[in-house]
Amino acid sequence: MNKAVIGLDFGTESARAVLVDATSGALLASAQRAYPDGVIDEKLPHSATPLPPAWALQNSDDWLSALTALVQTVSTQAGTDPSDIIGMGIDFTACTVLPVTATGAPLHTVKAFCERPHAWPKLWKHHAAQAQADRINETALARKQRWLARYGGKISAEWLLPKALQMLEEDPELYAATDHFVEGADWVVWQLSGVLARNACAAGYKATWHKGEGFPAADFLAALHPDFSGLYRDKVRGPVVPPGQLVGYLTPGWAKRLGLTTRTAVATPLIDAHAAVLGAGVTDAHTLVMMMGTSTCHLLMSERETLVEGISGVVEDGIVPGLFGYEAGQAGVGDLFAWFVKQALPPRYYEEARAQGVDLHRVLTQRARRQRPGQHGLLALDWWNGNRSTLVDANLSGLLLGATLETKPEDIYRALIESTAFGTRVIIEAFTQKGVAVEAVVAAGGLTENALLMQIYADVSGHVIRVANSPQASALGAAMLGATAAGKAAGGHDTLAQAATTMAPASEQRYHPIAAHQRVYETLFTEYKRLYTFFGRGQNDVMKVLRALKSQSQKEC
Amino acid sequence: MNKAVIGLDFGTESARAVLVDATSGALLASAQRAYPDGVIDEKLPHSATPLPPAWALQNSDDWLSALTALVQTVSTQAGTDPSDIIGMGIDFTACTVLPVTATGAPLHTVKAFCERPHAWPKLWKHHAAQAQADRINETALARKQRWLARYGGKISAEWLLPKALQMLEEDPELYAATDHFVEGADWVVWQLSGVLARNACAAGYKATWHKGEGFPAADFLAALHPDFSGLYRDKVRGPVVPPGQLVGYLTPGWAKRLGLTTRTAVATPLIDAHAAVLGAGVTDAHTLVMMMGTSTCHLLMSERETLVEGISGVVEDGIVPGLFGYEAGQAGVGDLFAWFVKQALPPRYYEEARAQGVDLHRVLTQRARRQRPGQHGLLALDWWNGNRSTLVDANLSGLLLGATLETKPEDIYRALIESTAFGTRVIIEAFTQKGVAVEAVVAAGGLTENALLMQIYADVSGHVIRVANSPQASALGAAMLGATAAGKAAGGHDTLAQAATTMAPASEQRYHPIAAHQRVYETLFTEYKRLYTFFGRGQNDVMKVLRALKSQSQKEC
Repeated sequence: MNKAVIGLDFGTESARAVLVDATSGALLASAQRAYPDGVIDEKLPHSATPLPPAWALQNSDDWLSALTALVQTVSTQAGTDPSDIIGMGIDFTACTVLPVTATGAPLHTVKAFCERPHAWPKLWKHHAAQAQADRINETALARKQRWLARYGGKISAEWLLPKALQMLEEDPELYAATDHFVEGADWVVWQLSGVLARNACAAGYKATWHKGEGFPAADFLAALHPDFSGLYRDKVRGPVVPPGQLVGYLTPGWAKRLGLTTRTAVATPLIDAHAAVLGAGVTDAHTLVMMMGTSTCHLLMSERETLVEGISGVVEDGIVPGLFGYEAGQAGVGDLFAWFVKQALPPRYYEEARAQGVDLHRVLTQRARRQRPGQHGLLALDWWNGNRSTLVDANLSGLLLGATLETKPEDIYRALIESTAFGTRVIIEAFTQKGVAVEAVVAAGGLTENALLMQIYADVSGHVIRVANSPQASALGAAMLGATAAGKAAGGHDTLAQAATTMAPASEQRYHPIAAHQRVYETLFTEYKRLYTFFGRGQNDVMKVLRALKSQSQKEC
Repeated sequence: MNKAVIGLDFGTESARAVLVDATSGALLASAQRAYPDGVIDEKLPHSATPLPPAWALQNSDDWLSALTALVQTVSTQAGTDPSDIIGMGIDFTACTVLPVTATGAPLHTVKAFCERPHAWPKLWKHHAAQAQADRINETALARKQRWLARYGGKISAEWLLPKALQMLEEDPELYAATDHFVEGADWVVWQLSGVLARNACAAGYKATWHKGEGFPAADFLAALHPDFSGLYRDKVRGPVVPPGQLVGYLTPGWAKRLGLTTRTAVATPLIDAHAAVLGAGVTDAHTLVMMMGTSTCHLLMSERETLVEGISGVVEDGIVPGLFGYEAGQAGVGDLFAWFVKQALPPRYYEEARAQGVDLHRVLTQRARRQRPGQHGLLALDWWNGNRSTLVDANLSGLLLGATLETKPEDIYRALIESTAFGTRVIIEAFTQKGVAVEAVVAAGGLTENALLMQIYADVSGHVIRVANSPQASALGAAMLGATAAGKAAGGHDTLAQAATTMAPASEQRYHPIAAHQRVYETLFTEYKRLYTFFGRGQNDVMKVLRALKSQSQKEC
């Protein structure tokens, strides 16, 4: 009988688990569980003290209780013999980081600290360290830090460095009491296996680690704050390990609690989006994977490292050992369409959706798909949430051009979809211009269900787009990590490539570019790029002027 | 006892009449009447033959029946002695033009012609002569016609020349049978008084007449079509007369039909928007009158003639005898706000309007007025219906810039209002740069009821804006024409200025610029002008590219 593996996907509001056949990847059971405390952004649990603006925390107890319940649920559902569950892998949001003691106890579980916000895990979308991020970027630029260029010239307020610096500046006592800053993913693995290993993916993409150069140097850290110089040496200790390696086996305590055995291998994890690359069956160089949700994450691997404009990061071993993983992104995609539906759609569309029993996006898509490319006469810049790649500029904003008194909501909706496709094409061109070839394109995530959108992406990019089958690509990718950590001899696989080859479901769904559409989109893309350059590269800084007026007027209020 | 005068305002769907005191201007009675055939744009009355696209006709019988009923209604309502009604003035849409016989019989009332579309009065918004207008503009440019510059370098498809040329080309027999092309206004006056006089306003603004140079020359007309050379000489005969002159007195037949006397003076008319200038009490140079409705018409008088960029026309005696009347305009203003409400407003605003028992514009205005200038972070180009002044380019289109995921409908609504105010300021600057000073600003029309909008116009323009009181400014202006035609000796006035001084209701409603707002709008206007130039003057022709793709894709359908 085939062996089985568990994949656990730790998200923002909930966690999901899959139990899959370690050979075929067939789904044997799956479950989902919300975190009781969810996103902690108003006040700490059991406390009345409000959190400052832009804070976002999680409760690490939620991770473990969700994990326990999910593993029990999927094992029971599938009726698999515990001894046949050979491995376990996880993926996690990142940078979701927590301060812990030398033994791994989260500081918020220490009675003396539990009322202090900085003692809690900072969720990826904790944005209260923007001032620190700005200073880090300025200082890194001024001190010509080589690593800065690997992150498109700017690191995000969401990452480890700003989050740790914020803690040092706002609660130095707690900073001093921190033995380790650990990614949530690595902390969960530490709990399960008793071993602390730092996954190369989060270390590289979120903690400015480089396989050859290590972490930023102490003198740079000292320039930020005299007590910050020892951050990496003292508080980010431990080996950085590529994904899918065996960290250890379940400890007796966890084996018992989960109803499994101490022969279950625990793997080095991945960030959720990166795990979905495996889940989509991609482990080779030069296949672009687009994770298309509220935002789009573009992941691409190559045999070599080069600097590509405006990428979010390039990390050796960041997705698959032995390859350089490139990440780029668009900050607002599904979010943009959701904005449009919420803020700009008249009642008759709601009535139509009700009458047909479908959702609003479906109504708009049905209408928009009757159009030919170019028919609506519109062009947009998809910067409603700023531009991540290639401009790395959160202060850019959205533009819609070409509106007339005849313009209808479905026209604008289609133009917005097209604008995000143009944004993706700019990213593809940024890669290929630097010699990082894009030979194939795979799409995953919720937006792939929109056939019109997918066709537009094919027409605009000129690439055949394959849609990844798995609705739970991240969790499946995590399961592959577990299967690889277990190894072939135990019934798993020796490499992630082998795991992906057999465990990823083959997808036959493909969108082919239509030549007549491509011609029109070629013209529109030329215009898009002119506007992209004009407004994005400082030829006209009106978007910055508007931002400045806006924040000035808000200060006066 | 004071004498009284009647003002008749002939609109697109209906006509209105006021009976006012000839001294004080006090309103004694008013009435409105819809035209039975309304706008004829689908098929001719009593015919099944569909009209081609873009046609728009009226029935001249509707004008006379409305006039008859309205005059009877207001006289009866007010109980004024017919012998005290000393004058009658009218204003009319233009260019609304009809072909008539030598005795003034409209060709559509001639049995042989009544089934032929070209026999009917072409309403101002008949747009089926665009091809002719394009050729006229090209030919005029190629032949360096001086008059072209007086119309911003381009005449409209709505004007006399294209409408007449369309008839010649599509129905030459009917063209040959036409003795006169007459404006609806002049034709009504002809009926009432038995005298054909052409009003200088319509002749100048819509039929390319100039007091010093006359009409375009025969050789130019011949270049358009060999049989067109005699248009003005043969078919646009008759004196061109300034507004408010005595054309004649009511004929016995009409005096009887209306229940008035043959001592009622009939005045040379004005176009409706121009009559509203008088109705707003303005007869002096350098006061800009803005007629703010679905579009905005800017009217300004000066002692001298000069060429101002992108104006719709400059006509000596065009509004008040002895002054040069300048007309400029914005093609979409109220229309733009109506578009927004119809195409981009979510259901919760409808619910709010219902709950409060107010209209949607009110709901948006209430929300938008809580903001400070600059707070929404948006900037728009108000070109949803193209740009009339100063660019005279119908192929330009709307732009909205600065949108984020936080942008709300009231933000966009306010940005659209501001964009139309910026557009007006560009027009004011075009005048002042050419030495046509704007010393005061008066607003009239439906949009003046929106206090937020009016304040924004004051803040953006830097001018105190006085709101004209009369809700029927055009009809009141028409009554002033009648009072002036009657003359002081008969109980009226000797000049339009005297009539306006006593008959226009004084308005105390004024909007003063707020210095703190002006500072922010100065910054925004600078950005607006940069975008205006960039997209409007060929630095980036993306709007043209989009129009071309749009019309190409429609042809393919």
